[in-house]
Amino acid sequence: MAKVTGLEGVVAGETDIGLVDGERGYLVYRGYWAKELAVTRCYEEVAFLLWNGYLPSAEELEQLKEEMAASRKLPEYIRRIIELLPATVPMMLVLQSTVAALGEQGNAAWPPAQGEAVRLAAILPTIIAYRYRTLNGLTPLEPLPELGHAANYLYMLTGEKPTEAHVKALSAYQILCMEHGMNASTFAARVVLSTESDMYASVAGAIGAMKGPLHGGAPYEVISMLEAIGTKDRAEPWLRNALENGNKLMGFGHRIYKTKDPRAEALQIATQEMIGKDPSFDLALHVEAAAIRLLEEYKPGRRLFTNVEFYAAAILKALELSPDIFTPTFTAGRIIGWTAHIMEQAANNRIFRPQSIYTGPMPQNEF
Amino acid sequence: MAKVTGLEGVVAGETDIGLVDGERGYLVYRGYWAKELAVTRCYEEVAFLLWNGYLPSAEELEQLKEEMAASRKLPEYIRRIIELLPATVPMMLVLQSTVAALGEQGNAAWPPAQGEAVRLAAILPTIIAYRYRTLNGLTPLEPLPELGHAANYLYMLTGEKPTEAHVKALSAYQILCMEHGMNASTFAARVVLSTESDMYASVAGAIGAMKGPLHGGAPYEVISMLEAIGTKDRAEPWLRNALENGNKLMGFGHRIYKTKDPRAEALQIATQEMIGKDPSFDLALHVEAAAIRLLEEYKPGRRLFTNVEFYAAAILKALELSPDIFTPTFTAGRIIGWTAHIMEQAANNRIFRPQSIYTGPMPQNEF
Repeated sequence: MAKVTGLEGVVAGETDIGLVDGERGYLVYRGYWAKELAVTRCYEEVAFLLWNGYLPSAEELEQLKEEMAASRKLPEYIRRIIELLPATVPMMLVLQSTVAALGEQGNAAWPPAQGEAVRLAAILPTIIAYRYRTLNGLTPLEPLPELGHAANYLYMLTGEKPTEAHVKALSAYQILCMEHGMNASTFAARVVLSTESDMYASVAGAIGAMKGPLHGGAPYEVISMLEAIGTKDRAEPWLRNALENGNKLMGFGHRIYKTKDPRAEALQIATQEMIGKDPSFDLALHVEAAAIRLLEEYKPGRRLFTNVEFYAAAILKALELSPDIFTPTFTAGRIIGWTAHIMEQAANNRIFRPQSIYTGPMPQNEF
Repeated sequence: MAKVTGLEGVVAGETDIGLVDGERGYLVYRGYWAKELAVTRCYEEVAFLLWNGYLPSAEELEQLKEEMAASRKLPEYIRRIIELLPATVPMMLVLQSTVAALGEQGNAAWPPAQGEAVRLAAILPTIIAYRYRTLNGLTPLEPLPELGHAANYLYMLTGEKPTEAHVKALSAYQILCMEHGMNASTFAARVVLSTESDMYASVAGAIGAMKGPLHGGAPYEVISMLEAIGTKDRAEPWLRNALENGNKLMGFGHRIYKTKDPRAEALQIATQEMIGKDPSFDLALHVEAAAIRLLEEYKPGRRLFTNVEFYAAAILKALELSPDIFTPTFTAGRIIGWTAHIMEQAANNRIFRPQSIYTGPMPQNEF
């Protein structure tokens, strides 16, 4: 059977945008620790940084915030397309379809421009919320220009102005989702763009990759575990039972991060204000503490730390976001990394055209 | 500036589907010469071969033809989406958007199934024709189930039942477009699918890559040249002038094929019945002969052969297809290769996750 390598260990290119160093627990965005940015900056500031390579001045930040707030509204034809798409079309395909549909000649052109990245990042939450609310029989809400990006997203989904603590948690989560090296969706965005295609086509390609559960699907399993545990007093027996049966605990340990996951560390800080205010969040913290203790008892020396999916699950559950909103919410963060990579690829483009080895038969005749 | 490699010379995997050997002028589909298939088989037969690895029996072919003919109609919501998309949305983004929109839970699932490939290949020409005709103020036409895939495509575009000679030429062209190794769009399809995404998301990703002029755009320049020449008697002076000014002649020589382009050879055979019946096609043949003669005179020993784009341009022009239909027509062929690669990837999947080298600054602080 024809084998694929997944290009593991193969260098696909250089980038100034981000560094992932799992051995050292480093996640760096343009010379800044991602965990620091997540707890000290807002969504728009970090987007500016990833796109431009430096943090915005107060004036530049204000301008970007205004531009993004002004770009949130859905064109009428996009609303109608969302309404036309059957309920059986999954949310990620709705995003892929509408992002492509937003591309218009002049916009969707070579080279891709930062204005297109701004527009797509600004409008994606509105598409998600519009689809979510119409599918669930709720009246769709107009974006509120006075709210920041993360706050407005929560508002459009839930219909309530969110608390500061919730905005801080979601904002930190989305900032930490923005960039993670040459992952499958970012790589897909670069491959699509490399034919001198456009921003819309490339982001749509990346959304297609993000749809797969090997990429964007992890927090679900943590939520299932938290729901199965249910109450604090059941945490230790449940976890002990799982470990004694040789089951993996979801939300601990990471393929890349062999030390602390810097994203989990940041989310721990960013969620301080949520402690004691939300029973489901407190349950998650209780489960985390018990799991770390028991993992050390059952797998001494393995150093299995809490990963980003554990905190993502705890936050998204506390925010009462529906599970079908998880991957889209991740996407609404990662779109910043995709668009930064798309512009970097365009600045020094070369078409991606690797080799393949033919393992099929050869013709037996001349022609 | 951050460099990209384009993965040139890097092996991204094995495949049983196709072999491109430019040094020897080989293009092999599943053990058969593509040039032989193009002149002896129909679109559906070669699609079956690429999907299944063997040529269909008479019964299997009949069944596939029926299945494809039955899958050509647009669902009502897809029609309405096409009508809603502003005229400024380029055709390739219309295709990307509607392919994603066709994905429904249960269909758009893991693993991808051949029925989805059949459906997408069958419906793509209808989307193209529907968009083309509505944009140009023409009444869209229902597909005719009694026509084969290529004939029906021409009918839906032009409104006339095509001649045998034209069907043969278009069919050969689309068969020769079906597969060409690990090109950018096929590679994009595999990268998207590798997250355990789905057939629709992956084909939509590939369409995004095909949109770029480095991939799907070549015949336009040949057409411009043929139009600039205009009449047979102007061919030699025009070409001589171009060569004396050091200009490249479009449609001759190929990045990969260092000997005859096997696709051009096949199209020469497949278009025999068009000779003497279409002035624009005869002009193209006259220009070809003059160009080959003059290239030998001006660049002796360079062995610059006619490439597939030259014949593609000659055929598409003789068929009176509008230039904005060229890349979509290429796409309606290549979709067979994409879907074959998607199923091959799924059968032995590994997520694509190459490395990147970080060339940006490091943080100067601890956090």
